Amino acid sequence: MGTQAHSVTELEKISNYIDAHKAEHIEKIKEIIRIPSVAAEDPEGVRQCAKYLEGKFKELGCSETEVYETKGQPVVYGHYDAGAENTLAVYFMYDVKQVSGEHWTLISDPFKPEVLPMAPFKSVIVGRGATNSKGPLAAFMNALFSIRGAGFQIPVNLKFVAEGEEELGSSHLIDFVRENTRRLRDATAVFSPGGSQNLNGDVTLALGCKGVSEFELVCSGKKWGRGPTERAIHSSMNAIVESPVWRLVQALASMTDPRDPSKVVIKGFYDNVAKPEEEDLKLIEELAKVYDEESVKKANGIQHFYNDLHGKELLMKAFYTTTLNIQGIYGGYTGPLVKTILPEKAAAKLESRLIPNQTMTETVEKVRKHLDEHGYSDIEVLEFEGENAVDDWSRTDPKAGIVQKTIDAYREVGLQPQVWPYSLGSAPRYMFTKPPLSIPFIGAGLGHGARAHAPDEYYVIEGNDKVRGLADSEKFYVRLLIHYSKGKLN
Amino acid sequence: MGTQAHSVTELEKISNYIDAHKAEHIEKIKEIIRIPSVAAEDPEGVRQCAKYLEGKFKELGCSETEVYETKGQPVVYGHYDAGAENTLAVYFMYDVKQVSGEHWTLISDPFKPEVLPMAPFKSVIVGRGATNSKGPLAAFMNALFSIRGAGFQIPVNLKFVAEGEEELGSSHLIDFVRENTRRLRDATAVFSPGGSQNLNGDVTLALGCKGVSEFELVCSGKKWGRGPTERAIHSSMNAIVESPVWRLVQALASMTDPRDPSKVVIKGFYDNVAKPEEEDLKLIEELAKVYDEESVKKANGIQHFYNDLHGKELLMKAFYTTTLNIQGIYGGYTGPLVKTILPEKAAAKLESRLIPNQTMTETVEKVRKHLDEHGYSDIEVLEFEGENAVDDWSRTDPKAGIVQKTIDAYREVGLQPQVWPYSLGSAPRYMFTKPPLSIPFIGAGLGHGARAHAPDEYYVIEGNDKVRGLADSEKFYVRLLIHYSKGKLN
Repeated sequence: MGTQAHSVTELEKISNYIDAHKAEHIEKIKEIIRIPSVAAEDPEGVRQCAKYLEGKFKELGCSETEVYETKGQPVVYGHYDAGAENTLAVYFMYDVKQVSGEHWTLISDPFKPEVLPMAPFKSVIVGRGATNSKGPLAAFMNALFSIRGAGFQIPVNLKFVAEGEEELGSSHLIDFVRENTRRLRDATAVFSPGGSQNLNGDVTLALGCKGVSEFELVCSGKKWGRGPTERAIHSSMNAIVESPVWRLVQALASMTDPRDPSKVVIKGFYDNVAKPEEEDLKLIEELAKVYDEESVKKANGIQHFYNDLHGKELLMKAFYTTTLNIQGIYGGYTGPLVKTILPEKAAAKLESRLIPNQTMTETVEKVRKHLDEHGYSDIEVLEFEGENAVDDWSRTDPKAGIVQKTIDAYREVGLQPQVWPYSLGSAPRYMFTKPPLSIPFIGAGLGHGARAHAPDEYYVIEGNDKVRGLADSEKFYVRLLIHYSKGKLN
Repeated sequence: MGTQAHSVTELEKISNYIDAHKAEHIEKIKEIIRIPSVAAEDPEGVRQCAKYLEGKFKELGCSETEVYETKGQPVVYGHYDAGAENTLAVYFMYDVKQVSGEHWTLISDPFKPEVLPMAPFKSVIVGRGATNSKGPLAAFMNALFSIRGAGFQIPVNLKFVAEGEEELGSSHLIDFVRENTRRLRDATAVFSPGGSQNLNGDVTLALGCKGVSEFELVCSGKKWGRGPTERAIHSSMNAIVESPVWRLVQALASMTDPRDPSKVVIKGFYDNVAKPEEEDLKLIEELAKVYDEESVKKANGIQHFYNDLHGKELLMKAFYTTTLNIQGIYGGYTGPLVKTILPEKAAAKLESRLIPNQTMTETVEKVRKHLDEHGYSDIEVLEFEGENAVDDWSRTDPKAGIVQKTIDAYREVGLQPQVWPYSLGSAPRYMFTKPPLSIPFIGAGLGHGARAHAPDEYYVIEGNDKVRGLADSEKFYVRLLIHYSKGKLN
């Protein structure tokens, strides 16, 4: 078994082992990318990948493994008992997004990965899932095998939780967590490996994420009982027949301030928005010093932030506001030129980003109540199932041990991470950070990848002076685990 | 030449001639349908049809004919001098709508017409343009040839004006009228043949039509300078980036009354709406007695008219209101489920029906002014060219001679036409009813056809106890011409 890796000397030996097994480690990434675990389209491929991963857990030396059945795709569980002081849960996703409709140019088959040169990097691996998330997953497993290969013991006990339907909204992961609370309760934190560097090599560490509530408002003559009820009719009739499109426009308009539609005027909309914690304010002070507003503007193609805010004010707005975004609006004739119709219905896809202490259902409830109170009880509020239509917010306490340990590890390799109170986007982290587990969730790692859900998805193999390559990423995972081996993680 | 047809005996002789030439007359309809004069796609077919029609005018005995070039498709002009007291302009369209994308089931080629049985009629002719408007056109020409064939003279002088781009919005007909005012100024009225009976055999006589002004409002981050300016961005950014979709919603909402969006609150929107004339009020009184509200509701799939109006009030609202209809609205993601984007733009296709004494440009001008005054100067108002995007209203005085003569002719064959002050729809009649010509425009005829612009378009050949067939329609055209031969038409 060897002694537990926890010193610089040991890290050096493991690093040498990693350097000596580069080719083999690249092959491991290729191996898992070749399995077409497309959550939306290929349940057989997903199951094959689950079996493959369970095999890896066994090979590593897990004392317990299971391909756990859910109502959706299986969760692969593995328990590696290192006899260590700390137990870390490791979150993986082993499914990928479908490739149908995508036009890949660098390789002919997204499931036949290749290592190719790609400026500004020396080489990258190209394939579906390369960065999201099979590359980082395999790199992390390579790191674990390298600790063992170099003759040491992994410094923390591990509880692997690998889900096979992240791309379908992680709908059944919560079932696994609830049904396996006993198995997971030893874990005091959960870690998710990823290539966290951007093109400049900078690293972001988000202590959670916003939630999201997505739904559709539909105004139809059929439900209203007025206007065209069955189909669009000739628009000359608009002189004596009302319009469901105008009704939707006015209903929507009643929800925001006409002078500033970013302000929602739905009663109680902001009631549950908590004031920032003391620690968050400190993070924001620090973040304001390094947050590159001009780069963000450029990357997003925007000229002005809301109200021309900047610095700390901008970040406060970014983190401590819930939103009511219109993802899309449609109704009637939308083709070229004109068509003389009075449409029978119109709809808008809405979305609210949730922050502490909002609940997953409150936006829909408040919108429904607003519509009812404003005489729009016929307008339907459709909620979606399955896809990422509802996610809760997630929060990891900046004071949690794993946070400082992760920052320390980054600093040791010369990187000062930008620490965000949470990311502005949404992910199913709450399944770990909220009851029954209530443990901190950290995603970290060196390296870089891009084009997730897009053609020519890649993950860096050999980097440059800013972005680390595969070997450095693997070594950094070892370094992180050494940090996680001592003291409290939660 | 023969004497001018103007008596019942003569009409009987001509009727016998029509009955004796049924097969030949059907062949004439087929002949012109076979020419693929698709305005939008086949300029060669259009030109071929123009030549064909000029040939018919010559064959009839026109002293002057011309295929008159415009910037679009040619207008075919013909002058038939009968030495009569009255001169009538005859409006034809000889172009048809394209068939691409349509699925015809009764015949294999829309340009190879066939006569088929079709309940509740004994037979109909099926083909592109059968009812719109080659069937009625050919029937009217058959009537004229029959008058001559029976040995009589046509009882009025005729000035044919046949346009080849009605389906493209009659964009250049106005040029022809302006450049040929001298040629047309003898005409004291203009007549357009059509199968004016509905399925119950009832006849409507519309003394004009509403105008229409169609345009699109576009709100984009690019023009606004705020929000996403180049492309949709991740919706998590909505916390600090504004939304062009919400901006469009609020801009639209500012144009109508939230409690009743059928009421437009744009300054001066209704200013030029004239009070109904004394004669119109009389027509509406009469119309209210026969206007079948339940049938209109059923045909349009509606349960309630605006404000639950009925009778005279409903008709007053139908005729004496200008509208601001949303034909369509679109922006962002409109596919299944959800997509987390903040769109870069949104647009709405708007339409206003114009009535006396509105101008063709005032709606766009007032909307533009409203947007500017409400801080939305960045929102674009796009006007369309070519298609039927702008038409002026048209009005034929109920006291005009041709109106009473047409009603008299209908009554003689046992039909009491519903006389509408104007139709709620729009058509390019104003080119005749407004300066420089300023003559009354009447569309009339027996018979029935349907599915204009749709598959299996048809025109009735042999009718039933309510709807007249081809021979009766041709006889009725002769009757109308006899009525038009005496007294003032304007």
